Amino acid sequence: MEKGLENLIRINGKAGRDVYEQLNRISPRMARALVEYPFNYIYDDSYMDPKMRETAILGAICALGYAIPQLKSHINAALNFGLEKEEILEIFIMMSVYAGYPAALNAVYAAQEVFEEKGIV
Amino acid sequence: MEKGLENLIRINGKAGRDVYEQLNRISPRMARALVEYPFNYIYDDSYMDPKMRETAILGAICALGYAIPQLKSHINAALNFGLEKEEILEIFIMMSVYAGYPAALNAVYAAQEVFEEKGIV
Amino acid sequence: MEKGLENLIRINGKAGRDVYEQLNRISPRMARALVEYPFNYIYDDSYMDPKMRETAILGAICALGYAIPQLKSHINAALNFGLEKEEILEIFIMMSVYAGYPAALNAVYAAQEVFEEKGIV
Amino acid sequence: MEKGLENLIRINGKAGRDVYEQLNRISPRMARALVEYPFNYIYDDSYMDPKMRETAILGAICALGYAIPQLKSHINAALNFGLEKEEILEIFIMMSVYAGYPAALNAVYAAQEVFEEKGIV
Amino acid sequence: MEKGLENLIRINGKAGRDVYEQLNRISPRMARALVEYPFNYIYDDSYMDPKMRETAILGAICALGYAIPQLKSHINAALNFGLEKEEILEIFIMMSVYAGYPAALNAVYAAQEVFEEKGIV
Amino acid sequence: MEKGLENLIRINGKAGRDVYEQLNRISPRMARALVEYPFNYIYDDSYMDPKMRETAILGAICALGYAIPQLKSHINAALNFGLEKEEILEIFIMMSVYAGYPAALNAVYAAQEVFEEKGIV
Repeated sequence: MEKGLENLIRINGKAGRDVYEQLNRISPRMARALVEYPFNYIYDDSYMDPKMRETAILGAICALGYAIPQLKSHINAALNFGLEKEEILEIFIMMSVYAGYPAALNAVYAAQEVFEEKGIV
Repeated sequence: MEKGLENLIRINGKAGRDVYEQLNRISPRMARALVEYPFNYIYDDSYMDPKMRETAILGAICALGYAIPQLKSHINAALNFGLEKEEILEIFIMMSVYAGYPAALNAVYAAQEVFEEKGIV
Repeated sequence: MEKGLENLIRINGKAGRDVYEQLNRISPRMARALVEYPFNYIYDDSYMDPKMRETAILGAICALGYAIPQLKSHINAALNFGLEKEEILEIFIMMSVYAGYPAALNAVYAAQEVFEEKGIV
Repeated sequence: MEKGLENLIRINGKAGRDVYEQLNRISPRMARALVEYPFNYIYDDSYMDPKMRETAILGAICALGYAIPQLKSHINAALNFGLEKEEILEIFIMMSVYAGYPAALNAVYAAQEVFEEKGIV
Repeated sequence: MEKGLENLIRINGKAGRDVYEQLNRISPRMARALVEYPFNYIYDDSYMDPKMRETAILGAICALGYAIPQLKSHINAALNFGLEKEEILEIFIMMSVYAGYPAALNAVYAAQEVFEEKGIV
Repeated sequence: MEKGLENLIRINGKAGRDVYEQLNRISPRMARALVEYPFNYIYDDSYMDPKMRETAILGAICALGYAIPQLKSHINAALNFGLEKEEILEIFIMMSVYAGYPAALNAVYAAQEVFEEKGIV
């Protein structure tokens, strides 16, 4: 649980803590699941380099098509782990091949919003 | 067109050429699209390192859930580009978080089939 | 047709009638389909207990990922049929396993909005 | 019910009757739903030309990605209504843009199987 | 590239040019892909009548469920190519059978928004 | 871990143990995740009655469309927990409304296969 919370804050910063606290008010059981499973068991850098991990995650969430809030959160995480703006866009451009243009375009627009919020355009 | 065909063979080897030739007999227009768009325009190593590219693609195809033949083809490509067996499995384990266990488990089984075909179990 | 309209109002209350009337102005053929097929043929309590029916529907719409308005409407229906707030949240927590965390989290947030609208937080 | 059964046989021929009879042995309630809703209410040529109807259906089932048996059944129906082999392939080639190459390629291969079964390659 | 841009403007009018210019500021590589692949290679009227092409695209984007902005853009394109308001609605009503009511209803509401913007209700 | 393995065997019987052992040979990390998260944390009867839990899961996996092996495994689990054959079919018939006929029909056929294997037709 502790390691999961540390990871959540290391990866998503203050926004990560806010997500946890909001979720904990709605459903402590869901908040605990999120911290113990993805952020403790799965986000373990001894199994995969964080840049590659975020690369796979960005590809997958883009392909789902419907999860724009989670996509923006992981675009932020990817920037925190050192992925370049151009690399993030390239992941979504590639997704035009695997998931189609609508999913790819909506991800590019989501990335642009994150870049603007962070002033890196 | 030429560069696309070269890429197709570089990435997927003899299986890549077979896919192209089979598709070209069914629909020359689809075969040309495949070679010119994904394999020429998109698979351009000056935009993204091939290992990272395959990492994003494996995450995305796993998340789609329904594309086992394409997943197996990209597991092969990922091995050709130097991704380790354990890294490929880790990508699919992570997908249990983003796309759910059914998609993740079916990808793990597909990976095992490719590993067995290549004798790397 | 009549039984379908009765069911629509029994299940979704005033919001159900509003959906029907709005849809009937846009497309009488779609409004008639909605009333005759889902709300007459399918919503037949002699085939399935309404609480179990809403349980299956909440699992499915959560897994689709993209249908937040319909999810909120069925969270309302589930409450009307006597599902507890904690049971509804548990359905979505389970969906983290079958459809992934993005779909599960967005459903939990949608539930929270419905609970707040109804003052049951 | 009668008009639905007529439509089912008009559209899918002997295979349509077989689907109905098999389904009727498993679940008479599902078989009746299939005949009354899609094949009676929806397949009504006064609302849409059958060639255009099958065009929309082929695009949609291809985009779903997972429904190869239903895709093959509608490729058959499309041929029965006069869509050309090349038009059917073009629908799936276009889907590389909207749903991605894996869905498009698997549909092209499914079409080829139907064309071979009917001897129109 | 030139033919693609012409097609983009022919199909989507001023909104098409705006999409291109906005995308070109975010990612020239994505903007070029969009123009060269879908709008040049795919949108080629010698392979398919534009009304049938938009019919397949509307079915597919409706079935994806998550791509409302792209759906509205293609509802506009379909009207520009001469599809009737009632035909567009009928495509979405049919999708209740192939992709379910949530996807179909959200498409009907999106269509109504486009019809109102264009004053054709 | 222990409670998870117990649950796996209680819910899926010998087939559950086989899945675990096969997965453990391919990826001990994935096998451990499966046992600790879904089968320990999530399958906790103090949060939800097992019949309702399987009802939600069957709705969701049917809606995904692509996960037939997991669907069959949960049809088995649902029968073990006391869901009637007719209730399982009714869940899938309802899914024609939420996920469309292709997903619903393929689930009905999968159910029939499980019923036949168990001799309960």
